[in-house]
Amino acid sequence: MSPAEKAAQLGSYWADERDSDQVIAPMQDTLSAGRRSFETVAADGIGQLTRVFGTRPVTAEEGRRQLAEAQRFLLTGTRLGIPALAHEECLTGFTTLGATVYPTSLAWAATFDPEAVHAMARRIGGDLHGVGVHQGLSPVLDVVTDYRWGRVEETLGEDPYLVGTLATAYVSGLEQSGVVATLKHFAGHASSRGGRNHAPVSVGHRELRDLVLVPFEMALRLGGARSVMNSYTETDRVPAAADRWLLTELLRQEWGFEGTVVSDYWAVPFLQAKHRVAGTVAEAARLALHAGIDMELPDLIGYARLDEDDPDPASTRADVDTALRRVLRQKIELGLLDRGWEPDPTGPAPELDNADNRAVARRLAEESVVLLANDGILPLAPDASGRVLLVGPCADDPGCLMGAYSFPIHVLARHPELGLGIEVTSLPEALRAELPQAEIAVLPGTPLVDADPELVAEAAEAARDSDLVICVVGDRAGMFGAGTSGEGSDAPGLELPGHQPELVEALLATGTPVVLVVVSGRPYALGRYLDRTAAVVQAFLPGSEGAPALARVLTGAVNPSGRLPVQVPASPAALPHTYLAPPLGQDGDKISNLGIAPAFPFGHGLSYTSFELSGPTLDADQVPVDGQLTASVRVANTGERAGATVVQLYADDPVAQVTRPVQQLVGFARVELAAGEAAVVDFTLHADRFSFVGVAGERVVEPGEVVLSTGHSVGDLTGSASLQLVGATRRTGPGRELVTGVAVTREG
Amino acid sequence: MSPAEKAAQLGSYWADERDSDQVIAPMQDTLSAGRRSFETVAADGIGQLTRVFGTRPVTAEEGRRQLAEAQRFLLTGTRLGIPALAHEECLTGFTTLGATVYPTSLAWAATFDPEAVHAMARRIGGDLHGVGVHQGLSPVLDVVTDYRWGRVEETLGEDPYLVGTLATAYVSGLEQSGVVATLKHFAGHASSRGGRNHAPVSVGHRELRDLVLVPFEMALRLGGARSVMNSYTETDRVPAAADRWLLTELLRQEWGFEGTVVSDYWAVPFLQAKHRVAGTVAEAARLALHAGIDMELPDLIGYARLDEDDPDPASTRADVDTALRRVLRQKIELGLLDRGWEPDPTGPAPELDNADNRAVARRLAEESVVLLANDGILPLAPDASGRVLLVGPCADDPGCLMGAYSFPIHVLARHPELGLGIEVTSLPEALRAELPQAEIAVLPGTPLVDADPELVAEAAEAARDSDLVICVVGDRAGMFGAGTSGEGSDAPGLELPGHQPELVEALLATGTPVVLVVVSGRPYALGRYLDRTAAVVQAFLPGSEGAPALARVLTGAVNPSGRLPVQVPASPAALPHTYLAPPLGQDGDKISNLGIAPAFPFGHGLSYTSFELSGPTLDADQVPVDGQLTASVRVANTGERAGATVVQLYADDPVAQVTRPVQQLVGFARVELAAGEAAVVDFTLHADRFSFVGVAGERVVEPGEVVLSTGHSVGDLTGSASLQLVGATRRTGPGRELVTGVAVTREG
Repeated sequence: MSPAEKAAQLGSYWADERDSDQVIAPMQDTLSAGRRSFETVAADGIGQLTRVFGTRPVTAEEGRRQLAEAQRFLLTGTRLGIPALAHEECLTGFTTLGATVYPTSLAWAATFDPEAVHAMARRIGGDLHGVGVHQGLSPVLDVVTDYRWGRVEETLGEDPYLVGTLATAYVSGLEQSGVVATLKHFAGHASSRGGRNHAPVSVGHRELRDLVLVPFEMALRLGGARSVMNSYTETDRVPAAADRWLLTELLRQEWGFEGTVVSDYWAVPFLQAKHRVAGTVAEAARLALHAGIDMELPDLIGYARLDEDDPDPASTRADVDTALRRVLRQKIELGLLDRGWEPDPTGPAPELDNADNRAVARRLAEESVVLLANDGILPLAPDASGRVLLVGPCADDPGCLMGAYSFPIHVLARHPELGLGIEVTSLPEALRAELPQAEIAVLPGTPLVDADPELVAEAAEAARDSDLVICVVGDRAGMFGAGTSGEGSDAPGLELPGHQPELVEALLATGTPVVLVVVSGRPYALGRYLDRTAAVVQAFLPGSEGAPALARVLTGAVNPSGRLPVQVPASPAALPHTYLAPPLGQDGDKISNLGIAPAFPFGHGLSYTSFELSGPTLDADQVPVDGQLTASVRVANTGERAGATVVQLYADDPVAQVTRPVQQLVGFARVELAAGEAAVVDFTLHADRFSFVGVAGERVVEPGEVVLSTGHSVGDLTGSASLQLVGATRRTGPGRELVTGVAVTREG
Repeated sequence: MSPAEKAAQLGSYWADERDSDQVIAPMQDTLSAGRRSFETVAADGIGQLTRVFGTRPVTAEEGRRQLAEAQRFLLTGTRLGIPALAHEECLTGFTTLGATVYPTSLAWAATFDPEAVHAMARRIGGDLHGVGVHQGLSPVLDVVTDYRWGRVEETLGEDPYLVGTLATAYVSGLEQSGVVATLKHFAGHASSRGGRNHAPVSVGHRELRDLVLVPFEMALRLGGARSVMNSYTETDRVPAAADRWLLTELLRQEWGFEGTVVSDYWAVPFLQAKHRVAGTVAEAARLALHAGIDMELPDLIGYARLDEDDPDPASTRADVDTALRRVLRQKIELGLLDRGWEPDPTGPAPELDNADNRAVARRLAEESVVLLANDGILPLAPDASGRVLLVGPCADDPGCLMGAYSFPIHVLARHPELGLGIEVTSLPEALRAELPQAEIAVLPGTPLVDADPELVAEAAEAARDSDLVICVVGDRAGMFGAGTSGEGSDAPGLELPGHQPELVEALLATGTPVVLVVVSGRPYALGRYLDRTAAVVQAFLPGSEGAPALARVLTGAVNPSGRLPVQVPASPAALPHTYLAPPLGQDGDKISNLGIAPAFPFGHGLSYTSFELSGPTLDADQVPVDGQLTASVRVANTGERAGATVVQLYADDPVAQVTRPVQQLVGFARVELAAGEAAVVDFTLHADRFSFVGVAGERVVEPGEVVLSTGHSVGDLTGSASLQLVGATRRTGPGRELVTGVAVTREG
């Protein structure tokens, strides 16, 4: 292969860009390769094809045709005839016209249900595979540290074990469908300063290892992800795309990863243009390549200039060959280099919004709704006949149900003539179906962001004439600041966006019972409303089946089982903080006037039935530092309805060589129980699950006490048991046990 | 010496606690030694005496008598007869009854005047020395990263070079008076998460070295500080009090520090009770001692238990001896062990609020007032005869002028019967003295925190009947949440505290010209008011001479020369951020909807005259990586009045191996010029001044371009010159050149 042919395999081509006037992203203008034709750019071949289906609105059939056309050119119009690997976005489903929009990631996290997430990923992967796509740029493994960040909706919450477990389920589902899963953003994106997208990340080595990196290690080792995407951000002044320690020493040498590392879009030229750690684009490219970025996305920019003014061509050639081997090996694994491979556009294109997809979307949506508070007003009786006011900027806007990476929000916002591209039941429709005898009036109450005192007054007047108010507030996601959630739509604070607080206050002032429904991409501070609401329901952008799911939770057709993967703060102050805080500086210290106790703690969620948990029973009270134990918890449905709960196991390490969280989730199990039914959950934990990075910077298991607690949430622990780790402090690391085994045995 | 005698030398006794029912700090209850008598605690001697003058209100004479009595007991009632070293707080002056209250540190920083700061420290040190105090627990070298932190008022701002330069001036002043200066808080206190006091600190090694530690290194090496106090906080999960790398490897082995490290109050038992890195207080004590804490403050708690269940007594004995040598060496240096030394309470006690003190306090206050904006309404003509409304919660409250560590706020808040303990001119008095012909009405406008719509309405009505409104808003400092600024009084956000925004809005709505005067301990977001105010003046808790200083700036009796040592944000969003941000993620990127451009940039401040700056002229355009250069800047007073400006020199490193700030202050010079006068400022910089911690974690000077710019602020650069550092990348570190030489030559 010639140098140009090798370099071409390390870059991508944004196929649909050539005849689009749309600005895809703010940084595109200065950095993209420009509108050069595919045949020009790919004359020596090309490594990947960028979002053939996900850029302009095309049908599956048309996208498949375009993709096949490009592949045929590569097969027959280039010397080597190597097909490209096609990648797409797929966070809330295949990000293409007419595909099912699943709930956003934060909603999957609220299910605490790896099996449901896996089922969704299988369906997404099947759809991608069915149209000839090889790689999906999901999931997001960034652990939330700041609720203000716009991409919180794309995450799986603030606990690294929950994130890692659910991401692993997603990854294995995608990979089992034959699609390469891409872990992003490696690493630190969620911790950008002030919740501001792309702002620098200040974390030290221990926090990086114990909080940020854990989910990546899990999803690589346990889920088998074959690709990783860098974070745009810098961590302690080293941009991830230039960080050889991160991308090579840790990822490959320590963790043994053998897949590809792809750049986030334009992250290679960013090293010159934005991070300024390279003087030219060519230097940026060599820096990224040497650090460990194998594939430049979305266009071949820097990697086309690797030989410009190169002071050390031999070293660059070696780096190229290393990356090339990984890229070609992946193509071989995917069968792209099999003799006789060719794109197959024959036969009908798959239906991307089919009933099976919808059933999984519905299941996830229903399981993800979190009942935060309830004075007994919920569930609404299905034969209720009163006057219900459904009000709020999200009450009748299906766009409020979808994440920023869904095609309707991500792309169709630029094509308003196409609407959402799929059928989406509105909340009024769904609620009327559930409450056929009620008289349901619908009002906006306020625009989502702007002020309109007349709308507020109208809503308050209607509320006074109603028996019940269902107030639906929250976010409308958008890209690059176009929404109140999503990439680039960071929050200035944690009050409900815009003038929604004025609407809520006006409704609460009427005295009519208010059920507050928050449909959002992040948690908002709700403390100020709590003692005045009849019930509070939290949904995290629940997708195309979100409205029926919400309506069915409100009426009890679905018994809510969602649990918070993030705290719901009481106050908008003292940001950032999450539940994983060490003891010093917590509220009891009285050393700051700013309280951090949440309105609703991590793991919280109510049901229409009741559950009782026993404290954990341990099979040993002494365990070697390289041993394991089983903690058994009995859970009983003590109420009148069938329902599901999430049994949660937390660990507290009362004395350690470094500061530790007061409590940290080490196991969980979603358990469905009929009324009166009980089960025993056996959690099997290796001592490695109590490891942490110590003073010397190495991961250790330390002898001493660990207290295990069960609870309905981290704020509602129901019992605990003490355990002694015995032996000498033990180093551990790659190969350590990363998961807690879970076995559920039903009684009787 | 017996083990008990040795341990006693490593602890302190809070002398006045024994007969006080006052809670000094929230953590005292659980951690203090209790109300044991001095004679009991100090039976084997004692290392220090804690705040004899600074706890209860005592006259200098009475404090001196109590101190002498304690020393006499040690001399004659203990076997070894070793006197104690007496320490006090002294941040805004000697923190004792009746002492001059100087401006708070953030105000010194706004002077950009090391000479004035040095003069103040000489006076403070002289007063301490004069009553027998040996050590002052100042200055604070924490570099601001989050304006919400309550202790921002105690800092010297957000630039490490400015902090280091002014702290060095303070330290040398205190030390030249024979008083041990104490650098605090070592290290990272200012970066606690969310601006919440004591919250964990997330910084990496490079940020720690390049931002947090620089001022400490400067003040130790250049100022000769003989003591350092740990930070309460943990950095990347290691509490500073247990951090042997920080307190021993870096501080002593790398930097060569030979003085004492004292614990912040109760930081030793905190290692067990709050950080949980020790299982018992005895373990906490051994951990702290081994890390490098030589002296436990404020009481002998942990170090009295060093031998409890000690698994390695020999090691502990060695650690005790190491600390003991440092403590005794300092006592020897201070003459405490000289034959015949005795406390000398004879003669009149010094006058702690004398005219010389006041003159220095006035100078600093006057130099620290920052004129942020002015449409020409200022200065007010001294013979103005109109109706002036002086309004706002800080308009007539001398308590608003003082920092939380001043005795009136720190202690007398618990003794309201004693008032402020010193004479303080109120702002109405000061303004009436400056504007004898004006008719000045005074109204509160609003309480500082609570709501009172009637007061707001009354103020608006009065404003409509006035020719000019001077609205004075801001903070009232307090300890542990009792104020809106000060230790434990962290801000929920950066809107003006409480209901002050409503007052400002109501006044602006009247149409009467409003001069907004902010007297605060931190910058607040002022963007929303700017296009409607006639002028904006910022003072940072200017002390006992603050009111006359402010009044004289308003009338032009003093030409304002203060410059911002922190940004004044436009919006309260996107916290934390400071001017030292790298390029990615700044506003131009459009990658976040949250802008960070300030309302007023770092270094900004107007004058009643005008200054012109030339761009810098370099004496070489190539400098070896171990060489130096001189950058010359001509500054001319082109207006009609005498005045002072601060010539500022910034460096931009356009390409580096790690991300760098867009601009960083590398030199400054406060220059006073008569109308029409000009001067040349020669800044001499060693290449070390462009060093940074590189990818490998070592400090380097890198070859390549550096752009030097002059400016009136970082947001108003007036010219630049490019320089090439030549040679190979050079490691540097301890012993590197830390300062920029400044020479001012007047023309003509």
